[in-house]
Amino acid sequence: MIGHAPNKLTCQCRAHLSFGCGPNMRFLPKLERKFRRWKKLKKPPLLRKLDALFKSAHKGHRPEDSAKRVQRENGKDIKNELSYKSREQFMYNGSFHEAVGSVLLTAQCFALMPVRGVTAKHPSSLRFSWRYVRTCCCLLFMVSMLINLSFTIYKVLHGSITFNSIRPLIFKSCIFLVCGKALSLARQWPDLMMKWYQIEQDLPQYQTQFEKRRMAQTIRMVMLVGMMLSFAEHLLSIVSAINYAAFCNRTDDPIQNFFELTNDEIFYVLNYSAPLALWGKLQNVYSTFIWNYMDILVMIVSIGLASKFRQLNDNLLKFKGLHMAAAYWSERRIQYRNICTLCSTMDDAISFITIISFSNNLYFICVQLLRSLNTMPSVAHTVYFYFSLFFLIGRTLAVSLYAASVHDESRRPLRYLRCVPKESWCPEAMRFAEEITSDMVALSGMKFFNLTRKLVLSVAGTIVTYELVLIQFHEDQDLWTCDQSTYS
Amino acid sequence: MIGHAPNKLTCQCRAHLSFGCGPNMRFLPKLERKFRRWKKLKKPPLLRKLDALFKSAHKGHRPEDSAKRVQRENGKDIKNELSYKSREQFMYNGSFHEAVGSVLLTAQCFALMPVRGVTAKHPSSLRFSWRYVRTCCCLLFMVSMLINLSFTIYKVLHGSITFNSIRPLIFKSCIFLVCGKALSLARQWPDLMMKWYQIEQDLPQYQTQFEKRRMAQTIRMVMLVGMMLSFAEHLLSIVSAINYAAFCNRTDDPIQNFFELTNDEIFYVLNYSAPLALWGKLQNVYSTFIWNYMDILVMIVSIGLASKFRQLNDNLLKFKGLHMAAAYWSERRIQYRNICTLCSTMDDAISFITIISFSNNLYFICVQLLRSLNTMPSVAHTVYFYFSLFFLIGRTLAVSLYAASVHDESRRPLRYLRCVPKESWCPEAMRFAEEITSDMVALSGMKFFNLTRKLVLSVAGTIVTYELVLIQFHEDQDLWTCDQSTYS
Amino acid sequence: MIGHAPNKLTCQCRAHLSFGCGPNMRFLPKLERKFRRWKKLKKPPLLRKLDALFKSAHKGHRPEDSAKRVQRENGKDIKNELSYKSREQFMYNGSFHEAVGSVLLTAQCFALMPVRGVTAKHPSSLRFSWRYVRTCCCLLFMVSMLINLSFTIYKVLHGSITFNSIRPLIFKSCIFLVCGKALSLARQWPDLMMKWYQIEQDLPQYQTQFEKRRMAQTIRMVMLVGMMLSFAEHLLSIVSAINYAAFCNRTDDPIQNFFELTNDEIFYVLNYSAPLALWGKLQNVYSTFIWNYMDILVMIVSIGLASKFRQLNDNLLKFKGLHMAAAYWSERRIQYRNICTLCSTMDDAISFITIISFSNNLYFICVQLLRSLNTMPSVAHTVYFYFSLFFLIGRTLAVSLYAASVHDESRRPLRYLRCVPKESWCPEAMRFAEEITSDMVALSGMKFFNLTRKLVLSVAGTIVTYELVLIQFHEDQDLWTCDQSTYS
Amino acid sequence: MIGHAPNKLTCQCRAHLSFGCGPNMRFLPKLERKFRRWKKLKKPPLLRKLDALFKSAHKGHRPEDSAKRVQRENGKDIKNELSYKSREQFMYNGSFHEAVGSVLLTAQCFALMPVRGVTAKHPSSLRFSWRYVRTCCCLLFMVSMLINLSFTIYKVLHGSITFNSIRPLIFKSCIFLVCGKALSLARQWPDLMMKWYQIEQDLPQYQTQFEKRRMAQTIRMVMLVGMMLSFAEHLLSIVSAINYAAFCNRTDDPIQNFFELTNDEIFYVLNYSAPLALWGKLQNVYSTFIWNYMDILVMIVSIGLASKFRQLNDNLLKFKGLHMAAAYWSERRIQYRNICTLCSTMDDAISFITIISFSNNLYFICVQLLRSLNTMPSVAHTVYFYFSLFFLIGRTLAVSLYAASVHDESRRPLRYLRCVPKESWCPEAMRFAEEITSDMVALSGMKFFNLTRKLVLSVAGTIVTYELVLIQFHEDQDLWTCDQSTYS
Repeated sequence: MIGHAPNKLTCQCRAHLSFGCGPNMRFLPKLERKFRRWKKLKKPPLLRKLDALFKSAHKGHRPEDSAKRVQRENGKDIKNELSYKSREQFMYNGSFHEAVGSVLLTAQCFALMPVRGVTAKHPSSLRFSWRYVRTCCCLLFMVSMLINLSFTIYKVLHGSITFNSIRPLIFKSCIFLVCGKALSLARQWPDLMMKWYQIEQDLPQYQTQFEKRRMAQTIRMVMLVGMMLSFAEHLLSIVSAINYAAFCNRTDDPIQNFFELTNDEIFYVLNYSAPLALWGKLQNVYSTFIWNYMDILVMIVSIGLASKFRQLNDNLLKFKGLHMAAAYWSERRIQYRNICTLCSTMDDAISFITIISFSNNLYFICVQLLRSLNTMPSVAHTVYFYFSLFFLIGRTLAVSLYAASVHDESRRPLRYLRCVPKESWCPEAMRFAEEITSDMVALSGMKFFNLTRKLVLSVAGTIVTYELVLIQFHEDQDLWTCDQSTYS
Repeated sequence: MIGHAPNKLTCQCRAHLSFGCGPNMRFLPKLERKFRRWKKLKKPPLLRKLDALFKSAHKGHRPEDSAKRVQRENGKDIKNELSYKSREQFMYNGSFHEAVGSVLLTAQCFALMPVRGVTAKHPSSLRFSWRYVRTCCCLLFMVSMLINLSFTIYKVLHGSITFNSIRPLIFKSCIFLVCGKALSLARQWPDLMMKWYQIEQDLPQYQTQFEKRRMAQTIRMVMLVGMMLSFAEHLLSIVSAINYAAFCNRTDDPIQNFFELTNDEIFYVLNYSAPLALWGKLQNVYSTFIWNYMDILVMIVSIGLASKFRQLNDNLLKFKGLHMAAAYWSERRIQYRNICTLCSTMDDAISFITIISFSNNLYFICVQLLRSLNTMPSVAHTVYFYFSLFFLIGRTLAVSLYAASVHDESRRPLRYLRCVPKESWCPEAMRFAEEITSDMVALSGMKFFNLTRKLVLSVAGTIVTYELVLIQFHEDQDLWTCDQSTYS
Repeated sequence: MIGHAPNKLTCQCRAHLSFGCGPNMRFLPKLERKFRRWKKLKKPPLLRKLDALFKSAHKGHRPEDSAKRVQRENGKDIKNELSYKSREQFMYNGSFHEAVGSVLLTAQCFALMPVRGVTAKHPSSLRFSWRYVRTCCCLLFMVSMLINLSFTIYKVLHGSITFNSIRPLIFKSCIFLVCGKALSLARQWPDLMMKWYQIEQDLPQYQTQFEKRRMAQTIRMVMLVGMMLSFAEHLLSIVSAINYAAFCNRTDDPIQNFFELTNDEIFYVLNYSAPLALWGKLQNVYSTFIWNYMDILVMIVSIGLASKFRQLNDNLLKFKGLHMAAAYWSERRIQYRNICTLCSTMDDAISFITIISFSNNLYFICVQLLRSLNTMPSVAHTVYFYFSLFFLIGRTLAVSLYAASVHDESRRPLRYLRCVPKESWCPEAMRFAEEITSDMVALSGMKFFNLTRKLVLSVAGTIVTYELVLIQFHEDQDLWTCDQSTYS
Repeated sequence: MIGHAPNKLTCQCRAHLSFGCGPNMRFLPKLERKFRRWKKLKKPPLLRKLDALFKSAHKGHRPEDSAKRVQRENGKDIKNELSYKSREQFMYNGSFHEAVGSVLLTAQCFALMPVRGVTAKHPSSLRFSWRYVRTCCCLLFMVSMLINLSFTIYKVLHGSITFNSIRPLIFKSCIFLVCGKALSLARQWPDLMMKWYQIEQDLPQYQTQFEKRRMAQTIRMVMLVGMMLSFAEHLLSIVSAINYAAFCNRTDDPIQNFFELTNDEIFYVLNYSAPLALWGKLQNVYSTFIWNYMDILVMIVSIGLASKFRQLNDNLLKFKGLHMAAAYWSERRIQYRNICTLCSTMDDAISFITIISFSNNLYFICVQLLRSLNTMPSVAHTVYFYFSLFFLIGRTLAVSLYAASVHDESRRPLRYLRCVPKESWCPEAMRFAEEITSDMVALSGMKFFNLTRKLVLSVAGTIVTYELVLIQFHEDQDLWTCDQSTYS
């Protein structure tokens, strides 16, 4: 049992390491991978020993046996270790359900995804019912949203309709649609997570706590960074609105001025009153959160799917170029097929949100770029405006790249299959290669478009083209006059 | 014979169920599928028994035998049942010829598809001749259309030619071309239906009346909904024209005003007379029907083809993941090949209508969106205009999605082939998979473009781009002045 | 020897038939195919006998033997027949070299493709030398063209440069480039034709004179129709120029007026003189011919290549669904490969001309559509202008569709391979299918784009987009004023 | 030993030949290939003997043996020759490291790629350290660049921001980014070159010095031509600036005028002083070099990769259509796989530079085309402007075509695989063919787009579209007024 000490130590030191790297922002797949590669260089002794064992498989007559032996040995290690481990170590089994627990909990504070048991250890504890309090909250918010939306429609229809003026309408309709879809997603969630869990259990497992925790950490980091930036943007928008309200003082009360500005669609219809103002403000805060959350949701599901593919790829990488039995390829092929099925199931579940998120981002980038041609009334505005614009572009890019990483990871096994030695090239390996070649595995926008890296370019091209055309209509309309909202 | 009672009962209850679902509008593929899935949950006892039998094939040594035995047994069931069945039960054999009977009959009332025997049980009764009364009616209408078209050309050439003013010309030319093509399609129809029938007979048959009736019901629903909406739009257009005629009273006679407005191309050349007005009105009604019917025809053929692919897929789904003999795959491959051939034959027959329908819809959406920028003279106009615009967009989307479903269904067998166990992976299964992977099975616009879901996005992109460019020419020309027709 | 009488008779009657169909215009692939299908119905007795023999192969043990036997027998027939045949019958061996003889001869009258022996029976008689008279003529014309071009450049640079004003410059540069490329093509021609001949000899041969003559007739028809329309357009342009010259009489001499108009680039620099005017006119006539000929050349090569693929396809169709030996597929695969190689060789040889032809047509369609917005000064102009526009669009469409037919025909063997029975599915058939699936066989524009039916749509879309943008610059500039040429 | 004399002679004569062809500009792949084909016709006697030996493999029972024997014999020849050879002959081992040595040395003079040992014989001598003088120079330049960039930003933000005015900003940001990336590339360079070297050693070797030197010569030619044109452009820009400065004499000192013009961003902030002017000028020269070098770098890597593929293809061509053992195909497949891996590694290393280079060129072509509509103030300007425009377009085209040649060469083995005789068609050959068919081997712009010939067309289309839209904003702004820089 002495031999296991280094491993235990390693895990702890790795846990430490990963805590250390926690606060770093790692929200672009490429950076992450670099970081990981750098860490790999500092391999602990046991891992090196394992590697040596795997290498030796090259010479052995029955490589799959030796590979299995290694796995068995490791299994024993882990089993033995488990009896020693604290609760902290036990926690991370690397499942997606576990990783998104806190993310869903946050969402529930903002009336989204009302499903019970999100922080439980096992997905079988997940429950959805129309009679839960959180479901009712969610429905209540949707009703409130609907009322707000109708105020907005009323206001928009009473002005002239331009590419710019329908902005609040599109913003609020999207929020409402996403809320509805999230509710329907919540109903499916327990089933989805069970399916996900079963497929996860069947995949080749990681040996170390560090590797198991990786996905969860990325997901939390994305959530944290997204929320913080969104919060910062909202604060700036408040500062900018206060600034603006002070300039265009319609009434003597600065607080009333502020609320009449930020919720002009309400006070266009009704008279000012403090409770209404508060309701409007709350609505704004929730809307802003949900607007960000729909992008984050797509990112998180993408990270989850990509990391499952990566889990398979990491196993394939281990045995790259070795003589593996047909059974190995057959097993991997079935695991790959399972993740593909999962990917397609998740795509069906979230592709409505994806398409809303993409078209929404596309529209807002165009509008903001168009507005960027105007002169800003104050420094506060300028700061808010450019922060908001770059946050929007960055978020869109992050969604696109994370979503594209699912497709990229799904193609990677092909690399390892290309290196299969002649003697081990069996019908199952061939079938595996052919399936990867011919299938298109990616998240999609309701099957109208697939989320790949090529999409980013064509979206960028579309934005530039539309922008060039839109600029032609543009006259430096004083968009910042006092009778219009600056609030996004 | 006691054992068959549940089955009989089931059929009746299913028939009842399906009648119940009749009035629901199920004109988008996705909704339909959801609905069906929901129904599947309530499986009747016999089906469950069948499933159990199929499941047992997993363990058996010769799965194809047991599968065939089940089919044989079912065949016997059906034969025995037949002697009991009433005329009502006998009616539905699930053939496409039977399903489109009433649709073609409706078309013949509007001088389209003049072929005899459309309501007969067997496609061999179909006949086309130049000397049938309905053929002559059709030719007569085409001559009348040609005269009307020449009036329109005369009127258009005497005004200034703009993107908007050539609208009636394009409308009527399309109607005329579609009439001609429908005549040529009618000549081919008996052969096409015979081919279709033969391929249908060879496919794995559905066991229940409910499943057999599904395609026919979808087709009728599409026809009904399409016709009703078209009728509603025509009524609104009349209301709007009456309203308009009352406003721009050129003469004292309100009826004359109305007809001079709706048939301005005739009375631009000739003096007003009641018979001419009546002729013009009839022409309008017929044109409107045919304008809608060309889209409906494409939808119906798409539904037919997609449902044939689905019939095959349902069979493949039943045996998904089981050990099937090579003969099973060989048979399915040949059946798949037959449907592909049928798809390509039908595409050759209707792709001219498809391309007319698509370019027509594209043009009209652009024109209507452009007109939407104008201020409307009255509420009646506004209602008519937006109803007409959304009907147009909805119809175009429905055509695109139904047509795309052919392609989607044709790719589905790949899913089941991916789950074939290693032991059953035979050259025939591989050949099947390769053929699906490499062939492009879809309806097309004269092979210039394929009708897939991706097309929808690129069409939408094209509309937005053209719209942005067109808007630049736009000045709020008072399109609703008294010297121009508001009639589409 | 009595048994051969029907065959002989058939050939003659077929020859008659085909002469009868000569004057029909068959310049779009689809129409042709329809026509051929109609003719196929009237099969002569011998062909029916052959078909019966082929059908019987279905039952035989060694199908390739019986197939070869039939071919051998036919070979004997033909050999025996040859002794009876007149010169007329002997003439048609169905080679591409023979088919393009007269086409190249016509080209040589207009200083293109100066190669000797184009009308010889065998391609080995083809010779190119720099010292032949026709080569010198060609070089002389190029020098003359260069002088003319420099006059044009001088004139264009002295005016304002717009999308419309550089028209003569682009026209003449293209002519010059095509001349140069045609000269280089002439040098390669003997080798190309030898290669083509060898591949042709190896293909499965047609049995009847009618089938052998088909390609040659299509080629001549395209040449004839193209030349006639081009001639008609040139006549109309002269009429329109005379009309115009009479209106803008700069001098008293109407002939001088005419020449000063049609060759304004010369008389912008030099003073008027009769020999110069004649030289200019000749230059115009030659340019117009070459401008049309570059499209015709692409069409003719396309027809040749497509008909070679069709020759192979016709053989595959004969044996469709039969049990053929692996050797049969192997042989067909090699023949297919040979045609592909030929296709790629020809593409290398003519793709520069193709890209010039396409970009030229694209530019001229855009310019002419833009000019169509102007008001025409006279009826003669209107007629000429619209004739010229529709001729241009029709020619472009014909080039695109004929070129695309090469790709379409190259994909067709896949259809027959899909119907190979399970028992005959051998590695060679599989290899054949895979090669067709994965290779892109098509003419190309210097590999920048492939000539397929999809291209037509994207070219049309490009034209519409550019047109919409160009229209925006457009002001009804009086393009028909007296100081500008109307001459294309 | 007498038998070797012709070979030795040949090598010398070839060396002579290649020196002779040195000054020719061979910077487009097509021209090069033509040139090579022409040279191949003049094959020396030994090569002919080798060919005969290879041909004889056709008849032999074990072709790989005979092939190896030939290689062994040649090996002996070369070994024997080596003892005779001078240092000059020894130099060329055909490695990429050797070929780019002088290119990297030039780059180091301009503060790029600070890596030691670039001219050493073996890549193992390559070293990178932060403490080397050249690394420090590089960092120093980057700091200087950053200061200059901040001056530029200051100036741009104080003017109106248009598509044209941000030109210096984009120019300098790109330079700065490329410098940074080149530094990071320099760190990876030793590893990259080692990998490259190992893969090269494993490839089938060329027999003659001429073939070995080919890649190095192409690379040097590209470098030389690129640098000379860039130098010519810079000289012209100086002439044009002097001309301009003389016209807009702000001060009495013509030298001060010149520097105030070319470094207006510095003297917008600071007062004129000679050292500053000198620093600015140096900065300009370096920037211009780096701006050209980033394109040259992409070209050189492309040439290197394409020539490795060609080395493999040349070997495949030798044995085209012969009966080769499975081991031959297996070996070639692994070599092909190695080059693919190398290609993907190099792509990861340089794709950031590629995307900067492409977007930069795209932007500058658009801007320059837009500026071409303005009237030029003097002849010097006109000459400089058009030289600069055509240089830009030519360079962009050259980069695109060279980069595309990697993809083209990677597809070529398919041609030879199609000609494998039936008997030699083994699973390894099939696997090789399938891998080529399904893999996309090309340089890419960070995986957003692949560099193929199709890209050239779409880039051209994009330029035309943007240009048409941009022209619409354009008013003949007097861009050549005295308060603006003409310096690119």
